Order: sequence, then C-alpha cells, then structure tokens
Amino acid sequence: MSALTQPSVQPSQQVSPMFFFENMNAYQKTAALVAAIELDVFTRLVEARSSSERTAAALAQQTGAHEKGVRILCDFLTVHGLMVKHNAASPVAWYEPTPDTGFFLDRRSPAALVHAPKFLAPPPMHELVKELVGAVRKGGTVTEEPTHENDPRWVDFARGMAPFTGASARPMAELVNSGGPQKILDIAASHGMFGIACLKANPQAQVVALDGAAVLQVGEENARKLGVADRWRKLAGDAFTVDYGTGYDAVLVTNFLHHFEPSVNEQFLRKVHAALKPGGKAVVLEFAPNDDRISPAIPASFAMIMLTATEKGDAYTYRQLSAMLENSGFRGIERHDPPTPQTIILGTK
Amino acid sequence: MSALTQPSVQPSQQVSPMFFFENMNAYQKTAALVAAIELDVFTRLVEARSSSERTAAALAQQTGAHEKGVRILCDFLTVHGLMVKHNAASPVAWYEPTPDTGFFLDRRSPAALVHAPKFLAPPPMHELVKELVGAVRKGGTVTEEPTHENDPRWVDFARGMAPFTGASARPMAELVNSGGPQKILDIAASHGMFGIACLKANPQAQVVALDGAAVLQVGEENARKLGVADRWRKLAGDAFTVDYGTGYDAVLVTNFLHHFEPSVNEQFLRKVHAALKPGGKAVVLEFAPNDDRISPAIPASFAMIMLTATEKGDAYTYRQLSAMLENSGFRGIERHDPPTPQTIILGTK
Repeated sequence: MSALTQPSVQPSQQVSPMFFFENMNAYQKTAALVAAIELDVFTRLVEARSSSERTAAALAQQTGAHEKGVRILCDFLTVHGLMVKHNAASPVAWYEPTPDTGFFLDRRSPAALVHAPKFLAPPPMHELVKELVGAVRKGGTVTEEPTHENDPRWVDFARGMAPFTGASARPMAELVNSGGPQKILDIAASHGMFGIACLKANPQAQVVALDGAAVLQVGEENARKLGVADRWRKLAGDAFTVDYGTGYDAVLVTNFLHHFEPSVNEQFLRKVHAALKPGGKAVVLEFAPNDDRISPAIPASFAMIMLTATEKGDAYTYRQLSAMLENSGFRGIERHDPPTPQTIILGTK
Repeated sequence: MSALTQPSVQPSQQVSPMFFFENMNAYQKTAALVAAIELDVFTRLVEARSSSERTAAALAQQTGAHEKGVRILCDFLTVHGLMVKHNAASPVAWYEPTPDTGFFLDRRSPAALVHAPKFLAPPPMHELVKELVGAVRKGGTVTEEPTHENDPRWVDFARGMAPFTGASARPMAELVNSGGPQKILDIAASHGMFGIACLKANPQAQVVALDGAAVLQVGEENARKLGVADRWRKLAGDAFTVDYGTGYDAVLVTNFLHHFEPSVNEQFLRKVHAALKPGGKAVVLEFAPNDDRISPAIPASFAMIMLTATEKGDAYTYRQLSAMLENSGFRGIERHDPPTPQTIILGTK
C-alpha cells in the first residue's frame, strides 16, 4: 500500500501488489522458454554426461554464451519450474531439466516442440526473445540502458512506481529514525517516497534528495502533497560525480546497487561513507535473493530484469551486498526484512 | 507425447507438454493486465453500483468496447486470479475485482498502479497490449489474419505443432476405427497427424487430406515417415469451396471451428454432412471450455488467442458446438474427453 494513500481510501482488508509483479513480468516466462530453446540449453543438459557439464560455466561454453547470462536464465527457468538446480548455493551448482522439459525440449527428439514458438509467439515476442538471447550471450543488455539521471524513463519510473514503496519505506523509516535532529541524504531519490517516509516518521529530520532535475520535480510534488516540503531539499546531479556534502546521519541507497557491478558499487559506497558522520548509516534497499539464487521467487526473478536491462547489474544476495559494504569501510552490517520482496541492509560508519 | 515418437525415444515416465502452453502463452497475462488498466475495467467495476453494471455488456458500454472482447478479457483475468466471475454459466454473469486488484487498479485511488506499466513493460509488450486493446474494442483481431490456406504461417503451424497431437489423436483414431474398410476426409489436415493416427489404428482405412498445397507437403512427409503414404491422398484447396467428393465414413474437423463464427461453421458443417455416407460421422476436436467459460484454464484461456488472432473466432463450449452440429443436420451428438486440454465431439449423419 502506498504511503501516498489517504485514510479515506485505506482498504478494508489486507491487500498486496504482488499480483502486479507476477502478471506484469509474466512475459519473461515466454521469452525465457523460447530463448532457452533457441540456445539449445535443454538439449545440452540432456546430452551432458556428468554434473560438471551441467554448470552455468560449462553450458556457457557449449552454447557460446556468457556464464552470467546462462546462470540468470537457468535460475529463472528453475524458479518457474522448468529446471531443477542442484547444489544451488554452491559455486558448482548445476542444472537438470525436468522430465517434461527434458523430453519435449531436446532438439534431437522427434517429439521436440522446438519449432512451435515460430507459430505460437506473436512478432513482438520474437523481438523480446531476440533481446534476451542477446543478453544471455553477452551477459548484459543489448539495448540502450537509461544510465543518465535525466533519461525520461526515470520520470516514468518516478510517476509509476511510488505506490509500490509504502510497505518497504515505513519499516525503513523506523530503522532510520533517531528520535532527534537528523540529516538524511536520499540518493537516486526518484519519487522521493523513501526520504519522505523518514520525514513523516521523524519531525526533526531533514532530507536532501539527489536525482536528475526532471525526476526531482516528481519527488517535489510528492513532498508537497504529503506536507513535508519544508524539510525536503533537492540536489540535482549524477550520484557518481556530484558533491554530496558531509555530516549526514543516514544515506538512503534504495534500488540503486542492482544497476552496477560490485566494483563500481564499492567505489560509490566509499563516497557514501565519506559523506556520513562517524556512527552514521548507509541504508540499502535491494531485491536480494537467497544464496541459492532461486528463492524467493520475486527477488530471484529480478536478476532477469537486470540482465536484459543493464550492462553489468544483477540481483545481489545479502552476502554479496554485505561484502560490498564491508569493502567500502562499513561495519556492523544488519539485515532487516520488511513484509515485501525486498531486503533492507544497514552499514555503520 | 507425439505420435511421431519412436519407441527408442519413449520417455521413462509420464510426461506432459502442459508446461509449454503455460509458459508460451504467459505473455498474455502481461498484455491482459495492462489492457485492462488502459481500458479502466477495474475502475469501472469498483465504481459500479450493482451487479447489472458489472456484466460484460454493461462494461462494454462503459468502456466503449465490444461485449465479446470484454467478456473474453474478463474471463481471462478471472482464470488468472485477477477477477471473480459470478453466475458464471448464466447470460447475466458479472465480474468483481479481487481485494488486491480493486485496490491497486482503481485509477481514482492514490495507490493506483496504473502508471507503472509505462516503465515496467518493454516496448514490444506495449505493441502486444495495443493489439489486445484494439481487439477488445472491436471484438476481433486488429492484425491481418492468415485466412488463406496457403499462408506461410500454416506451414509453420504444421511443422511446429505436430508433437502436440498424439494424446488427442490416438483416442480420436480409436473412436473413428470401424474395424473394416473406411474412407476418411481430414479437413484442414495440416501436419496430417490426425488422419495418420486413423490409418495407424485401422489398416483398412484410406484418408483424403485437405489443406493448402504447401501445407500438405508437411503432411505428406509425416505420412511417409510413419509408413502410411500409400493410403494417404492429398486434396489441395479451400475447405469452404473445394469439392470434397462423397461417400465418406468419417470427416475429421480438428482445430478448425474456433476460427469462425457459428453461422459460418453451420454452413460449413452442412457441406461436411453432404459428403458423408448415411451413418457417417463428423469428428470435431476443439478447445471447449465449460459453460462458465473460466474452466478448465487452458481451453478457457484459448478464447484470448482467438480474440487477438481472428476476426470472428472463439473458444466454443460443448453446448455451442453440439448446437452447431445439430443445426447442420447431425444427430446422436457424443462427447469424449481425451487426456489433453481438448474435447472430441462426434455427430452422426
């Protein structure tokens, strides 16, 4: 439920937007099935003679694809019941077709359904499949990524996604709330809802919201609507290059790290570290799958979105995210799980 | 499992291609969700004051769409858990949002997720949504339908879909088998697998396979591979206009009636009736949902494919199909349910 929601439109019972993620992203199941057929992943798995020929690395070599791309595709197919993953949390995880997919998707079988997508998938799906096959081969997006903070897609994001934030933003605001005066930096603030939730929780807090100038207009509207505009200030610029200032009690890093590779994130987190007061906190919000990378379904499937939409991004596990924080100078890493598909991770300077 | 499958590649356990339908068509869930948001179906349902304002006819009027289009969209959303259908098998069936969809998809709510698809759906999905919105408005496809029997898409169909046929074709062949000499007409024969199954079941049967000339080459290959080419003969032409000849013991009408409106089907079935011997049988294979049109999931969802791909087609219920047969002169209508999502319906001359 949205933090924007007014009491008069509170639902009469518990509601959840999970149906929206599931159905909105359902097209990826079609794309993943057809991409796996095109890459002959199932054929390779059936003909492999040992588990060592069924790892993401081995499959990548056999199919001429990128290990990361194969790993994310096979994890996605596992989440959706088309494969089984063994030793899932280990570096030598390997994949196995189910009886159904092994029988019908082995190209060598006369029963193979490998030609059916040509008739069944409408032309726009073929385009999505092509993008996914390209991303699996390359290990990253083959389309143009909206990296610039003023890309109009980030305005669409800010306008469209605010209603999803409430159930993560309220618990985050409680964790951040010191009960006294606080200076908070909200990086990649977008709709502004995470910083605004902190302002609602603590009347003595001040927020600096960083994002592209066009995007910040959406955040400003929300801050005004929710009555906190007097304590909410804009900082327009690129999170990697703009001067944050110093002396912050908390820096919010929400849905940001999944766009970049770990080394870039660590460089960025060192900049966050420098902007904090001693004892100040980095507050990270992420889709963090378990170490098996196939559960829970929503954060595990999120890796597929990062594969197709970003050059180097991923859905990082809690273990990976805490390592990034530690490598950037943070200590006392804490994990909190709000009642949403996301995870909050705190690191202290 | 395919009738093409040789014993050496029989699976070691029971397998099913149902995973393929579910994942292949998963993109429709994305398209249906976004189309319903664009047409504001959920908003209209929330603000409606009585069940009579929540019928497909009432919604069609409120949204400026076609009743058939709205009915198929809402049935699909019901199958996939985004709506509830009341009095489902009656002519005054009406729809209700679930608590989740009523709360998050009512455009008037500050929590409305109605702007999220702009960011979340990739451009090719927007194209699919546009086609679906157009089809719901019009009550039929807004793209060009492959009506001609020589359209290359029917060759893709013949090459891609043969492996799906086995589990329906074998029980059909047993129903058709008279144990003696038989003359069988296989209309819209495509890959030829239904007629071929009859030839395998009865060594005294002869099949005339009707379809476009290019498509029949695929059927001919299959007849040869399966060792029945000497009893399998081609008849190239349009099922509505070509001369069938007369004196058939059985006429196979598989996956054909769903492309057309009932009146066209009845005219066609009268032609089938004329080609049969007295006592001969029309053998219809269809995706036939129950009268509620929301179960079973696969035949009920098939209506969505017909809405977006054909001018006037639909997934017809057993009740509708038996009425078409009776109106065309058939009697003794019988229903058989093979272990597949399809239904076999027999009518006797």
